[in-house]
Amino acid sequence: MSQINLAIVGVGKIVRDQHLPAVAGNTDYKLIAAASRHGTVDGIDNFKTIDEMLAAVPGIQAVSLCMPPQYRYEAAVKALSAGKHVFLEKPPGATLSEVADLEALAAAKGVSLFASWHSRYAPAVEAARAFLAGNRVHSMRVTWKEDVRQWHPNQEWIWQAGGLGVFDPGINALSIVTRILPRPVFATAAMLEFPENRDAPIAASIDFTDADGLDLKAEFDWRQTGKQSWDIVARTDAGEMVLSEGGAKLSVDGKLVHEAPEREYPMLYERFAEIIQAGRSDVDLAPLRHVADAFMLGRRKVVEAFFD
Amino acid sequence: MSQINLAIVGVGKIVRDQHLPAVAGNTDYKLIAAASRHGTVDGIDNFKTIDEMLAAVPGIQAVSLCMPPQYRYEAAVKALSAGKHVFLEKPPGATLSEVADLEALAAAKGVSLFASWHSRYAPAVEAARAFLAGNRVHSMRVTWKEDVRQWHPNQEWIWQAGGLGVFDPGINALSIVTRILPRPVFATAAMLEFPENRDAPIAASIDFTDADGLDLKAEFDWRQTGKQSWDIVARTDAGEMVLSEGGAKLSVDGKLVHEAPEREYPMLYERFAEIIQAGRSDVDLAPLRHVADAFMLGRRKVVEAFFD
Repeated sequence: MSQINLAIVGVGKIVRDQHLPAVAGNTDYKLIAAASRHGTVDGIDNFKTIDEMLAAVPGIQAVSLCMPPQYRYEAAVKALSAGKHVFLEKPPGATLSEVADLEALAAAKGVSLFASWHSRYAPAVEAARAFLAGNRVHSMRVTWKEDVRQWHPNQEWIWQAGGLGVFDPGINALSIVTRILPRPVFATAAMLEFPENRDAPIAASIDFTDADGLDLKAEFDWRQTGKQSWDIVARTDAGEMVLSEGGAKLSVDGKLVHEAPEREYPMLYERFAEIIQAGRSDVDLAPLRHVADAFMLGRRKVVEAFFD
Repeated sequence: MSQINLAIVGVGKIVRDQHLPAVAGNTDYKLIAAASRHGTVDGIDNFKTIDEMLAAVPGIQAVSLCMPPQYRYEAAVKALSAGKHVFLEKPPGATLSEVADLEALAAAKGVSLFASWHSRYAPAVEAARAFLAGNRVHSMRVTWKEDVRQWHPNQEWIWQAGGLGVFDPGINALSIVTRILPRPVFATAAMLEFPENRDAPIAASIDFTDADGLDLKAEFDWRQTGKQSWDIVARTDAGEMVLSEGGAKLSVDGKLVHEAPEREYPMLYERFAEIIQAGRSDVDLAPLRHVADAFMLGRRKVVEAFFD
């Protein structure tokens, strides 16, 4: 395959930390342009808006959309309508319906749409999937507790309606859970805690089950100081499986069975090139669907105001 | 086709008002059993639980599930697993994910699953669809305002998490909107009003758009006394279309163009027989997906306590 001329829209923290290094390390791509209200990327053409960029650089073949989810749909429609392949940062949109619409548009235009879930490419996720496929799972506990001040300092959009609040990291856990469990699950109850001055939750607990009555509970909390937790623990017929550090390490009954260097974003860009070459899309809405279900099903509790 | 031996589970108001007359008037069905914690149906075998019913009456071929949505999944799994066709009252479940799971189970078992949306069978809905298909729509206003004390007296489940609150009638409007509009829409903003003593909203407003920038607003309110409103008004190139009284009447520029006798549930049972005969399912989750999107995207406002 010849190189894919790539552009990036929404140059913020995640682009600088992850996208730029991943693209620079992959010879399938040539980064030729960026568009962003504030940020720029050195050494390429920069624009303020996606419209200016698409008009000025017709050679763009694919676009990565990394702005907040509330603004992603409009940009995606422009890119897809112009015949570009589109990589959506997670979450892929502010609603399930808009992403379903984008998927139909990509199909109509004959281009690839990628709803990326970076945590699914954490080093030990596939090993966990293989382990659970061969063993009966009795219960699972998902604990995603982190300090929002450390990981999302002054990111206002994340607290606005549609920004998902604590589900922004929580959806990473759900993207892993839906990958490693052999059967689909669904929420049966949820509690969402909203700071009195915010439109998005700072904590959430969700009970899930499946057709066989699996006991699955997820706890998401953004008020964690000190040790941060991104762990999934499963009791199975073959012992206790612990997938820890956001999917980085897998242990069974206390014995480390899988660990490898982290390369989530490099793998995302490998996957994107693969689906472009294969002429198809990769849009799994299950993680976002579980979030929407939790909002719809969940009880709400107003808690102490949060200030950055 | 020989008669379908039907059973009904969850004998409450909607069953007595709608299901029993519709089934009695359709020679494709023979109602042979019912299961319900409290209600009974005269002249047939009655049971307290679906388990007892399925064990005692093996001749059942199809089951209508009419209990509150929070309890529907478990009964549906039992019926589908026993090889019965299943009719789900609206909304089809408490989460999108559980209904997706049921759809897969129905396919695996080779039986039909019907996610019913009775308002789609209101007399003038197809006429509205035909009108909008041929004309450009500029804006649409959906007003669903009714008195919850009149229509859902002392129905506790409707106020519990998962009971959907004002979206229980509102989803009827959304089932019509998603049927009559030529292109898919998605929510861009929403405001949900929760009584301080309830876990489900008493009012909601939602802004929608589509890929062409349609201006669509929906207002749902359960605090309406006096005149009740179930109206959809569209400004189009061919004039102002009004679909009123929950889909019963269609007017264009003030002139009544379509009106017919109401027979929503008779048509639902005709449709159910049709998909059973054709060996397929009919599960459109779009109305419930829009509700989940509104919960996920929406801002929340706490309002005055509500007492029945």
